[in-house]
Amino acid sequence: MAKTKLIPRTSSAYDPPLLIKTLFAQAVRYNPQREIVYRDLFRMNYTTFDKRVRQLANVLTNAGVEAGDTVAVMDWDSHRYLEAFFAVPCLGAILHTINVRLSPAQILYTMNHAEDKVVIVHEDFVPILEAIKGQLTTVEKYIIISDKVYTHPEAEIIATTFALEGEYEQLVNDANPEFEFADFEEDSIATTFYTTGTTGNPKGVYFSHRQLVMHTFCLLAYFPGYRALPLDNRDVYMPITPLFHVHGWGFPLLATMLNFKQVYPGRYEPEMLLKLLLKEKVTFSHCVPTILNMLVNSPVAKQVDLSKWNVLIGGSALTRGLAKAALELGINVTQGYGMSETAPIMSVVHLNEEQEKLSIEEQLEFRTKAGKIAPFVELRLMDDDGNFLPHDGETVGELVARGPWMTQGYYKDAEASEKLWAGGWLHTGDVATIGPDYYVTIADRVKDVIKTGGEWVSSLDIENLLSQIEGVAESAVVGFPDIKWGERPHAILVIKPDYQGKLTPESIKSTLQAKVDCGEINRWYVPDQIKFVPEIPKTSVGKIDKKRIRSEMREMILSN
Amino acid sequence: MAKTKLIPRTSSAYDPPLLIKTLFAQAVRYNPQREIVYRDLFRMNYTTFDKRVRQLANVLTNAGVEAGDTVAVMDWDSHRYLEAFFAVPCLGAILHTINVRLSPAQILYTMNHAEDKVVIVHEDFVPILEAIKGQLTTVEKYIIISDKVYTHPEAEIIATTFALEGEYEQLVNDANPEFEFADFEEDSIATTFYTTGTTGNPKGVYFSHRQLVMHTFCLLAYFPGYRALPLDNRDVYMPITPLFHVHGWGFPLLATMLNFKQVYPGRYEPEMLLKLLLKEKVTFSHCVPTILNMLVNSPVAKQVDLSKWNVLIGGSALTRGLAKAALELGINVTQGYGMSETAPIMSVVHLNEEQEKLSIEEQLEFRTKAGKIAPFVELRLMDDDGNFLPHDGETVGELVARGPWMTQGYYKDAEASEKLWAGGWLHTGDVATIGPDYYVTIADRVKDVIKTGGEWVSSLDIENLLSQIEGVAESAVVGFPDIKWGERPHAILVIKPDYQGKLTPESIKSTLQAKVDCGEINRWYVPDQIKFVPEIPKTSVGKIDKKRIRSEMREMILSN
Repeated sequence: MAKTKLIPRTSSAYDPPLLIKTLFAQAVRYNPQREIVYRDLFRMNYTTFDKRVRQLANVLTNAGVEAGDTVAVMDWDSHRYLEAFFAVPCLGAILHTINVRLSPAQILYTMNHAEDKVVIVHEDFVPILEAIKGQLTTVEKYIIISDKVYTHPEAEIIATTFALEGEYEQLVNDANPEFEFADFEEDSIATTFYTTGTTGNPKGVYFSHRQLVMHTFCLLAYFPGYRALPLDNRDVYMPITPLFHVHGWGFPLLATMLNFKQVYPGRYEPEMLLKLLLKEKVTFSHCVPTILNMLVNSPVAKQVDLSKWNVLIGGSALTRGLAKAALELGINVTQGYGMSETAPIMSVVHLNEEQEKLSIEEQLEFRTKAGKIAPFVELRLMDDDGNFLPHDGETVGELVARGPWMTQGYYKDAEASEKLWAGGWLHTGDVATIGPDYYVTIADRVKDVIKTGGEWVSSLDIENLLSQIEGVAESAVVGFPDIKWGERPHAILVIKPDYQGKLTPESIKSTLQAKVDCGEINRWYVPDQIKFVPEIPKTSVGKIDKKRIRSEMREMILSN
Repeated sequence: MAKTKLIPRTSSAYDPPLLIKTLFAQAVRYNPQREIVYRDLFRMNYTTFDKRVRQLANVLTNAGVEAGDTVAVMDWDSHRYLEAFFAVPCLGAILHTINVRLSPAQILYTMNHAEDKVVIVHEDFVPILEAIKGQLTTVEKYIIISDKVYTHPEAEIIATTFALEGEYEQLVNDANPEFEFADFEEDSIATTFYTTGTTGNPKGVYFSHRQLVMHTFCLLAYFPGYRALPLDNRDVYMPITPLFHVHGWGFPLLATMLNFKQVYPGRYEPEMLLKLLLKEKVTFSHCVPTILNMLVNSPVAKQVDLSKWNVLIGGSALTRGLAKAALELGINVTQGYGMSETAPIMSVVHLNEEQEKLSIEEQLEFRTKAGKIAPFVELRLMDDDGNFLPHDGETVGELVARGPWMTQGYYKDAEASEKLWAGGWLHTGDVATIGPDYYVTIADRVKDVIKTGGEWVSSLDIENLLSQIEGVAESAVVGFPDIKWGERPHAILVIKPDYQGKLTPESIKSTLQAKVDCGEINRWYVPDQIKFVPEIPKTSVGKIDKKRIRSEMREMILSN
């Protein structure tokens, strides 16, 4: 490293570490009268939120939580989760956001692996814990959550056989509202959660206070200069990405720091989400395509005004078909790109001055890209030998990343960590192109790309084509071995109710063949087999589960 | 410190330091077609800017500059200065922004003290260097700047007796446009400059890369949540604060990172500034009150539309009179607060939803405050014994600060550094109140506050009163010893040309006495002596020089 001069420090001078408590300090500075809302059950302003976070810190301290301990949460998206987002890390403890969609065996694995000491659990998830509690090796105490305290305060909370510290709402209300959060090193672990790979046990990623502060700044930097995130001073924010999933993509930290009105929807039911969205005048959300698809296709969506709603899509690819359907309802939809290991944001779509003037149809090309590379993130393309490839918008390679908020490894898994960081770059496992305009376009997952007759075909490209055929609700494309071509694409489709019986696999093939005939697409893009299915298998975070499709549906797909 | 768990790092993992080069990397990512303009002499887009910064890095490297060396700049506000803002620190070298308004002896002192190795100097300042060059102990090479290269390329540049490396524009144009900036520690010194205190030699403050990155984030954080800085994606930025003064308050780094159109005006002549402002459609500037006063009182100001212009005032107090005059011209004027030692921003006025609805007259109260405490800054009030005082909006104490961008000391001056950081808090030397709404109101400088009859009277309060009397252009109030009252306020005033002969010191006193009679102000606010003067002494950065007023004008003021 270059031999620079370091700043001399006066012995009494103070240089603060970058801690989540510095974000939390902003919660009451600007518009503390704004509200944080949980469904139609609870609402408070930021002054109360500030108090409750300090009360929760006292509750946890009383329960024996110390700096370095892990506190796990199993809850629907709620104000309580947001309180834990701040109280736990500000104590110097580690927040483990448990993925409640994992199997009980996987949840057990992650809880023992993360060494959870105290668990805050919604009564809906008590049965899971009852089933595994004999095998939990580190948990000492449980705090139970119930929504009944808001609706039926007299009702009894689910009976448990746990070492219960008490009920969340009562503990918080009874606690001392004074708590001064101490300083500690900015490289302290603030959060951990688990990603489910294609093989083996879930892998734990972890983020430091500094990394989460820097990620929040990245989101901030998107606003005034780039307007990639269509956020504003008066925005009302409602995440529709589970808070256990990469801290709700980091936006709850930002929204709290900026004193936005925040709305937490609990669990996701389309009509309830739409009702809440309209009632609370929500202007900004983020979700995976599946959720947007569900909302767009809800009968209610067509009867209400969604033109004030901005949605950032991530998690898996936004197809042109879905983007168009959303835009036609007036929803301002764009896409971002990230992963659990990257906290998660690495790029967000930003239409520049010229692109903003394009027609909706022309804008689809940009809106469905992975986005422009985020501030302070470096993204490069790498070939199999570790060489960098040109950013010409055409050359395809594996996307590798660097930046101030990339996980520094998988917890207690040196082998997977070294593989993730091979050559000093974080390997995303995605195949992509990067344009000279810093736009990233994901071609496919490294493991999902289909090699057919010497050509690399992106399964996402074919899914995009299929999404634009009228009547197709969803699609998934996978490759299977082929003696002649090496590999060939195959597709499963979900057909919209109105189109049942009107469309056939053959009619879909003909539609694609017509595009081949007029030179719009290459002939190897037409799947060998097309099968209609009632549902497409998804992972616990709502992504298309191609691993399961390849294993469990193989015979069905390949049958004639 | 609390015993947290630190993030484990995989050996191959990469966690980037916070460097100015990460801000610079943004310059070409979003709207690289936007322009950087120097008067009517030079304009380029960000792609060219990116190239020229790398060329300048090669020029400096060729001139022998290495990481840890100091490069000084003496220039008017220009695109070249902005290029040095990035090229010098990105090399790991230290940018010394010389205050060209200091006396040659002071400039000599700062250049030797900072150990300048290479000096980039505009030909206008060559005479200063010629006068002191025999005493410069560390300078090895000079790069000369001339505006003639844009207007009279054939004209000769001023003759010098220096070790000239060459002329800036030619050196840059001839240099290799490829330069990859290396990584180094984020605590490396990036910049240094000198503050002139009331006694002794100028004192050098210094800022690290990390500190300047964090300060830029602070400015960013003001946008979307708080809208304190009325900036937008499409803004056109023109600083009217010298770039040698606390890096132009940090905004050039922000504007570059956000790809704003930037306009650099060279030297400050009211008509030229207004012309440039209108021609380039400038929407955001910052300056000291003196400059705004000069522009507001320019005959041109009343003939043009200034309603798109947003101005942030700092450096010294924005009086109600000046704020009103600016608002009446349609200028959106607010105030911020900071100092050289704090990089500089510590607070900026932010009108909340209710305050925005107030009348202009009612808004004056807020717009002329020092502002709401900036994101990530801690400000407290301290008494003489080091005790914290309440934030009730009434209790007066010395303002002390902490935050991620406070200078860690004065360069090679341990004694002054320890005093600055007494008790682990940076002492601002300002007396203030802080409200429960996080609003700071500066009462006075610690050394300028007037103690009269047991009351503390703020000289700024009296100046504010005087500024609102029709015909008063500027005022300064100082305290002089008084046998009966301990100390009494005295005022000097500059009267607007149209009011010469119409106002007298007695009529001013009567106006104030009328306010006493109706109970609007306390009687001890009426200055003992009021004297009309042609001009108010100012420091090199445009602040009222009360030290000189107290020493040089004492007899004149106290005379009957």
